[in-house]
Amino acid sequence: MRTHGGNIYQSSNILDFSANINPLGMPDAVRKALMDSAQNCVHYPDPECTALVHALAKYEAIPASQIACGNGAADLIYRIAHAFYPRHALLCAPIFSEYAFALREVGCEISDYPLNPAQNFQLDDGILSAISAETDILFLCTPNNPTGQIIAAALLKRIADRCRETGTLLVSDECFLRFSADAAQYSLRRYLHDNCIILNAFTKLYAMPGIRLGYALCGSAAVAGKLRETGQYWSVSVPAQAAGIAASQVPDWIPETVRYVTAERAFLTDELRKSGLFVYDSAANFLLVKAPSDFADRMKLRGILIRKCDDFHGLTDAHFRIAVRTHNENSALISAVREEYK
Amino acid sequence: MRTHGGNIYQSSNILDFSANINPLGMPDAVRKALMDSAQNCVHYPDPECTALVHALAKYEAIPASQIACGNGAADLIYRIAHAFYPRHALLCAPIFSEYAFALREVGCEISDYPLNPAQNFQLDDGILSAISAETDILFLCTPNNPTGQIIAAALLKRIADRCRETGTLLVSDECFLRFSADAAQYSLRRYLHDNCIILNAFTKLYAMPGIRLGYALCGSAAVAGKLRETGQYWSVSVPAQAAGIAASQVPDWIPETVRYVTAERAFLTDELRKSGLFVYDSAANFLLVKAPSDFADRMKLRGILIRKCDDFHGLTDAHFRIAVRTHNENSALISAVREEYK
Repeated sequence: MRTHGGNIYQSSNILDFSANINPLGMPDAVRKALMDSAQNCVHYPDPECTALVHALAKYEAIPASQIACGNGAADLIYRIAHAFYPRHALLCAPIFSEYAFALREVGCEISDYPLNPAQNFQLDDGILSAISAETDILFLCTPNNPTGQIIAAALLKRIADRCRETGTLLVSDECFLRFSADAAQYSLRRYLHDNCIILNAFTKLYAMPGIRLGYALCGSAAVAGKLRETGQYWSVSVPAQAAGIAASQVPDWIPETVRYVTAERAFLTDELRKSGLFVYDSAANFLLVKAPSDFADRMKLRGILIRKCDDFHGLTDAHFRIAVRTHNENSALISAVREEYK
Repeated sequence: MRTHGGNIYQSSNILDFSANINPLGMPDAVRKALMDSAQNCVHYPDPECTALVHALAKYEAIPASQIACGNGAADLIYRIAHAFYPRHALLCAPIFSEYAFALREVGCEISDYPLNPAQNFQLDDGILSAISAETDILFLCTPNNPTGQIIAAALLKRIADRCRETGTLLVSDECFLRFSADAAQYSLRRYLHDNCIILNAFTKLYAMPGIRLGYALCGSAAVAGKLRETGQYWSVSVPAQAAGIAASQVPDWIPETVRYVTAERAFLTDELRKSGLFVYDSAANFLLVKAPSDFADRMKLRGILIRKCDDFHGLTDAHFRIAVRTHNENSALISAVREEYK
């Protein structure tokens, strides 16, 4: 059994801090696009996502030929595994677990590069010597899920250079990057070469995880074409295509989100620390904390869902991930923590 | 490049006979469920599709543990290939092309069992000796896409028995079966054993192909579990789960659909024959016809999209597939054919 955040379906009336969704919610234009799309669902989706790809090309300032869309970023993770059939992969630990699930599905051998808790799990340049000509694929996640650590721009450049030398397919999952200040500075977009894929999704930023829409920005049209030709013909639904087009055109959504999340992340970090929890610094819209091993269970009894992290390689039952939510929700969490640990 | 029907995105104002969708359209209850689901899209979908599986278990009269849901039946076709990794497959020809695409994605060798045009492409018992212990998987489609031929119940039973003997995974794609009279009589449901999967979808019957919702009824909980554990965690969107639940509860939808499609299929068959086209008898909501090779192009100039079938193994550029639509639409097609071939 796999574990992930956001499974609210086994409880009712729960306050969900386990899924890392934009606390500003879904933009009105996206909700309207979803409702309006219902009447078009009597048709198959456009298999080539023509209008969506066009909108994304503008939003991401990249040629349409280098874009592939999927049924959520998770769909693209599996398509990468199926399309490129890697035999040896390198993964940081801890990291989002679907990379390993997808790689194991094609029988790929996985080497872990352990992140150091004493360095806040910050990726260091030791990764460079762990990448060899044997490494078919390297998945990075920046900011990393579940640690919240962003990869330094200079290091990311050196990793991209190293992967070019070794012929390693470099996949940078940037689904949480636009929650960070100065996101563009930390994106693989700056160092994109032929053998690169950037994973992104509208799931988190536009609060539409129920819709399933992810996309890959590829270093070449050949890589994008290979992803598009792998898997089924109609992976992206009519509502997802409509919602994605609408999302790409919402003005000021990203700066407003960054402003809100930055302020609330600072508030939540400070208050949780005052309550005696160990909170790692984070550049994302979630926090990794250390707490007594019954922390999640005690919060659940108070109607609050947080993400246990004991299933991540390199973490333990003392680690938990907490999303940055609205101010009221964050305050409710803090009150609950205070009550529990007073 | 793959070809399928229903790609209306390269033309405008087209009358689409290329996709085999219920001419009665989408039930109001499904449209309402879609609209209502928009607000729930801020959450991840239930990865286990709990409520949907419960509704399907009732609708299909099968234990919930034997059901796996997917992002359209096409998603499940690929998941079957990835989960069971067959090395040798047997496919009838002609047949829906996604089975072969999915099988080739995992490097599976495919043997064709050619269907005889002189017998209306009806499957015959020669298939029994084509199934051997080497055959890891057999895909059937009943009624077959694009020929419209239903597999005789007695033959289906013998095929199921043979697959049990040879240890062959038997997949029966029944996405079009409920458009046929006496559907239950022709379903693999009657002969289901451990090593069987029935593929179904709400796409066609409830006119919701834009939503992507398919499901597999498996001979055992173990087979269903394997499908559920293959591929991404959240493959079925929130709108798809809501629409599926609503669809499963629409009263009298199936008998009304069968009544309408049966009458219109007879009308369309007769009138096309009167216009000089060769029309194969069909048990489905579509017709395979033989016509001059420029038939589709000539219809397109008249604003009518039909499915060229020259990419199907065993068919030629003289074969076309035409969906059974509403009476007005069917009449418009017949008028266009008469004008063109008078």
